[in-house]
Amino acid sequence: MRTRDSYLGHPRSTIDGLDKAILKALQLDGRRPYAQIGRELEVPEATVRQRADRLIARGVVQVVGVTDPLAMGFAQPAFIGLQVETGHLEEVAGRVAAIDEVTYVVLTAGRFDVICEVVCADNEHLLRVLGESFGSIEGIRSTETMVELRFVKESYRWGSR
Amino acid sequence: MRTRDSYLGHPRSTIDGLDKAILKALQLDGRRPYAQIGRELEVPEATVRQRADRLIARGVVQVVGVTDPLAMGFAQPAFIGLQVETGHLEEVAGRVAAIDEVTYVVLTAGRFDVICEVVCADNEHLLRVLGESFGSIEGIRSTETMVELRFVKESYRWGSR
Amino acid sequence: MRTRDSYLGHPRSTIDGLDKAILKALQLDGRRPYAQIGRELEVPEATVRQRADRLIARGVVQVVGVTDPLAMGFAQPAFIGLQVETGHLEEVAGRVAAIDEVTYVVLTAGRFDVICEVVCADNEHLLRVLGESFGSIEGIRSTETMVELRFVKESYRWGSR
Amino acid sequence: MRTRDSYLGHPRSTIDGLDKAILKALQLDGRRPYAQIGRELEVPEATVRQRADRLIARGVVQVVGVTDPLAMGFAQPAFIGLQVETGHLEEVAGRVAAIDEVTYVVLTAGRFDVICEVVCADNEHLLRVLGESFGSIEGIRSTETMVELRFVKESYRWGSR
Amino acid sequence: MRTRDSYLGHPRSTIDGLDKAILKALQLDGRRPYAQIGRELEVPEATVRQRADRLIARGVVQVVGVTDPLAMGFAQPAFIGLQVETGHLEEVAGRVAAIDEVTYVVLTAGRFDVICEVVCADNEHLLRVLGESFGSIEGIRSTETMVELRFVKESYRWGSR
Amino acid sequence: MRTRDSYLGHPRSTIDGLDKAILKALQLDGRRPYAQIGRELEVPEATVRQRADRLIARGVVQVVGVTDPLAMGFAQPAFIGLQVETGHLEEVAGRVAAIDEVTYVVLTAGRFDVICEVVCADNEHLLRVLGESFGSIEGIRSTETMVELRFVKESYRWGSR
Amino acid sequence: MRTRDSYLGHPRSTIDGLDKAILKALQLDGRRPYAQIGRELEVPEATVRQRADRLIARGVVQVVGVTDPLAMGFAQPAFIGLQVETGHLEEVAGRVAAIDEVTYVVLTAGRFDVICEVVCADNEHLLRVLGESFGSIEGIRSTETMVELRFVKESYRWGSR
Amino acid sequence: MRTRDSYLGHPRSTIDGLDKAILKALQLDGRRPYAQIGRELEVPEATVRQRADRLIARGVVQVVGVTDPLAMGFAQPAFIGLQVETGHLEEVAGRVAAIDEVTYVVLTAGRFDVICEVVCADNEHLLRVLGESFGSIEGIRSTETMVELRFVKESYRWGSR
Repeated sequence: MRTRDSYLGHPRSTIDGLDKAILKALQLDGRRPYAQIGRELEVPEATVRQRADRLIARGVVQVVGVTDPLAMGFAQPAFIGLQVETGHLEEVAGRVAAIDEVTYVVLTAGRFDVICEVVCADNEHLLRVLGESFGSIEGIRSTETMVELRFVKESYRWGSR
Repeated sequence: MRTRDSYLGHPRSTIDGLDKAILKALQLDGRRPYAQIGRELEVPEATVRQRADRLIARGVVQVVGVTDPLAMGFAQPAFIGLQVETGHLEEVAGRVAAIDEVTYVVLTAGRFDVICEVVCADNEHLLRVLGESFGSIEGIRSTETMVELRFVKESYRWGSR
Repeated sequence: MRTRDSYLGHPRSTIDGLDKAILKALQLDGRRPYAQIGRELEVPEATVRQRADRLIARGVVQVVGVTDPLAMGFAQPAFIGLQVETGHLEEVAGRVAAIDEVTYVVLTAGRFDVICEVVCADNEHLLRVLGESFGSIEGIRSTETMVELRFVKESYRWGSR
Repeated sequence: MRTRDSYLGHPRSTIDGLDKAILKALQLDGRRPYAQIGRELEVPEATVRQRADRLIARGVVQVVGVTDPLAMGFAQPAFIGLQVETGHLEEVAGRVAAIDEVTYVVLTAGRFDVICEVVCADNEHLLRVLGESFGSIEGIRSTETMVELRFVKESYRWGSR
Repeated sequence: MRTRDSYLGHPRSTIDGLDKAILKALQLDGRRPYAQIGRELEVPEATVRQRADRLIARGVVQVVGVTDPLAMGFAQPAFIGLQVETGHLEEVAGRVAAIDEVTYVVLTAGRFDVICEVVCADNEHLLRVLGESFGSIEGIRSTETMVELRFVKESYRWGSR
Repeated sequence: MRTRDSYLGHPRSTIDGLDKAILKALQLDGRRPYAQIGRELEVPEATVRQRADRLIARGVVQVVGVTDPLAMGFAQPAFIGLQVETGHLEEVAGRVAAIDEVTYVVLTAGRFDVICEVVCADNEHLLRVLGESFGSIEGIRSTETMVELRFVKESYRWGSR
Repeated sequence: MRTRDSYLGHPRSTIDGLDKAILKALQLDGRRPYAQIGRELEVPEATVRQRADRLIARGVVQVVGVTDPLAMGFAQPAFIGLQVETGHLEEVAGRVAAIDEVTYVVLTAGRFDVICEVVCADNEHLLRVLGESFGSIEGIRSTETMVELRFVKESYRWGSR
Repeated sequence: MRTRDSYLGHPRSTIDGLDKAILKALQLDGRRPYAQIGRELEVPEATVRQRADRLIARGVVQVVGVTDPLAMGFAQPAFIGLQVETGHLEEVAGRVAAIDEVTYVVLTAGRFDVICEVVCADNEHLLRVLGESFGSIEGIRSTETMVELRFVKESYRWGSR
């Protein structure tokens, strides 16, 4: 089901201190049992579970296996920077987000209006995604593909403020 | 501990069909119990656990809580595109990866030699990271900061080939 | 009222030496009493007031409180460089000037045809201005947003020639 | 005296509701008598004066005559976009801010690291500023001059949030 | 006949070790007699000939005289980088490949979507190709011509893996 | 042996009509027997052979098997555009031409000073060439890598003028 | 009359040695009497005059007073780089050449398709030329204005080959 | 002699109405006899000659034969855009102006700091000028060569203001 990991909007709803502590624990290890997190934070396991479930449901956190694309057989991941016709930003971003090979979409200020990441198996797969999937979206002014040659760091442990 | 989530190199070691099935299950839900995955794949829980532990240890997968930076109090995430002096690529990328606020570093072909992502609390935090952390690294020819205005999609479910 | 601080055209009408002296005094301190300016320039207060009123009415000078956007709760000011379709420059500039969040519009030679400044409260506000206000203007070829991270100087004391 | 209109840093100190109301009044008309502002806000003139003086002293607001450069005999104003060597941002920005003809300096994210505005009398004056003033600053990687051809809007009335 | 040296698609069909050895021999010297290649590889001449013919027929190798354009009277060769409207990549590339003066067409990631090479006799010939041949193709967003000033290396001996 | 397929300079020595006819025949089919070319051009086989040998020796033509990189196991070919420090053009181009993976080097006018092509097996091979081979050459100001996604045309039959 | 100094095409008709000698003399001093040139070249004055008249009529040379724009009251000369829609190059160039303020038009390879020079009195004149004259030409994709700040050299004495 | 056609500085000395009328006449036809100009302007021939000589001596006008480079055997003219290290603008421009093949040097605002024009016989000549002449000048940050493909207009008749 796509809808859970794709959101247009921004979840600035209130996150309290306990939420932050639970999120931080999950950033360090997504599989840590809720009972153990509860003991560390001195709250019942049921509370941790309830809070975690709600944070997941609201899209504040996803607990997932983040895999190396190469290991999964996807040898050609790439960033694509888009320039979008003025006034079509949200619509284009939404349609880009609906492409299966697109794993990441963010609206940006600067040279590009949208930066997204695609995970493809090889050059032909990448060309097919560019030609067929992006090619059918109205309102894209230009695309610039930046092939990813090697991952050096991918960290999800930035704590909280 | 930084070393587990930061790797210079590429783990192309052999991943068999069972590994891929386990990775795929974790991509869908990082907290799914190994017993349940075992039942679905018709292998003992112990085998799933052993395989998963080895895949995590080798850096093929991280099971983590991927959080919304805004929810954690980081209102100013940004991409930074780097051009690096020829011959200093790996050294610069390694030093960039060692910066705490940097969550993502990838070597790319095209306009930039390195694209990284930083997660900062506000503009002053971003300026401090650019000035102090990046500013002390030799061999950076230029940086171009692309402030992230809104996340539209962040998915980790690309399956396997 | 918008019309007074928005002008299409250029007021090259004659400014004499006394006008310049009064303008220079107001550049140093916008609240200096006209009587005091009159004493320094050895003309009657009434003359200073009459001249100042006319210079303000003609748009040669605005006496205003120039505030720090951050202090006013606007945390995301930005420059936007526009490229405009040939032949639509004045029309586009006029419509951009009519946007409330736009504080500054100037026609330029070089990479951009128009440079303007917007003062927004946060990223979502900035996206709304880009999408709705700029998005409804015909004839914009591209926009490039340059987020302002910190003000270092803002001076209005350049005297005269 | 330069120091008052040039500040490195950011005045995020607390501004209360009364401060905002006074700032807003000054944005509309910098010469409005404090007594009149006091009557409108239902506080004594002395309080308004005290608050305004403190806001001015802290650099939160400048009450100035903002003049048309052309009227003052400066026919060649320009924006200059700077790219700065990594690690020299604050130092370069500070030295640029110390140049007399520079009226505006802001640190930015994107194509340029610093955007500033210079107000010059003619092309030769502009060349002299570029060659002598900017030319003596170490750490500038490149400058790109965007001559201003016509002012279309300059507004200081953005209210508060 | 154009069709043999122009292919849209990619011949990833299986190439075995003997094919590679024959290809490698032809990379070194395209005129080496098949009998001689056969002796070196210890297979009959007929086998070499059969394999070579099939590799040529499938477009895996062309055995050709690669000439210096200048020697043939073509003094103005050039690279042309194309940006193509999203969704028209294959169609545009196919039509560019059908232009006689175009000797090389490749789909690329980065600043350009297509890079091609044209071999023209002089500036007027180049202008005619740009204006008439490229000018009649729909879906080209921009062209950037990079005149070739001197050939330094052209090698076809990269062996195999 | 590298020296035969790498030349710095330009062979504008005289090519007569017979030379051109022989070159044209070899452009069409590099393996056509000299006897057959001689019959078509009505000159003795010995003359064709002598002329062809001299044209090859002078570098005017190479008769080679031009292979599809993919078929040879090189999945990641790329163009690299270089900007070179003024005054180091020939030296840099010569050193780039000496890199084994580099198959093509040309001096160009425009955005790049040198355009070259590299034929690599995969992303890691490409990174090694960029880091070690290009990285050890002084005088390169910047490199921009444009990964080749698919070959559409490669023709050597442009005849003569 | 405009037609004499505006030509679409290229006059590669034959110029002999005497023509070149006369052209060279006129490059050095456009007012040198034909009698004097005749004595130096040892041909009759009538021959020099006849040749010179024909060279002027054919557009090979213009004998003109090349003036400093500033001295003539034109304080804002500028280069304008144009990108033109593929297939409209000659038509656009011809229409640009018909603009009075345009003194120079050349078709170029590289970043721009056409580079032209305009000689304007001031910023408002430049804006009027850009808006009205260029603005009415179909097929211009973009313009980039590069204001000329100071002339350093303008020489017409390049002799012959 | 170089000095007459190369000037660093700007001759804004006073030009009166008669000067302008004479300059305008010379713009139309550089060989028009002074006697004839005198009759048209109703001043003695001696006055015209005296004024013209002084205008030429001061560098306000050059009366020259402006020739078509192609006719003179120079088949490869080009614009070169320079970016110059901050603080070396005048020095670099002066040294560029001293190169024989350079016919035009102007300081500009925008993408380039200096735009110059070179008139070369062919690609090798252009490479030699770039490598040897420009290559020996310190302080050039980058050069971008834009080859001129065809002249469309070159006019010297812009009158006066």
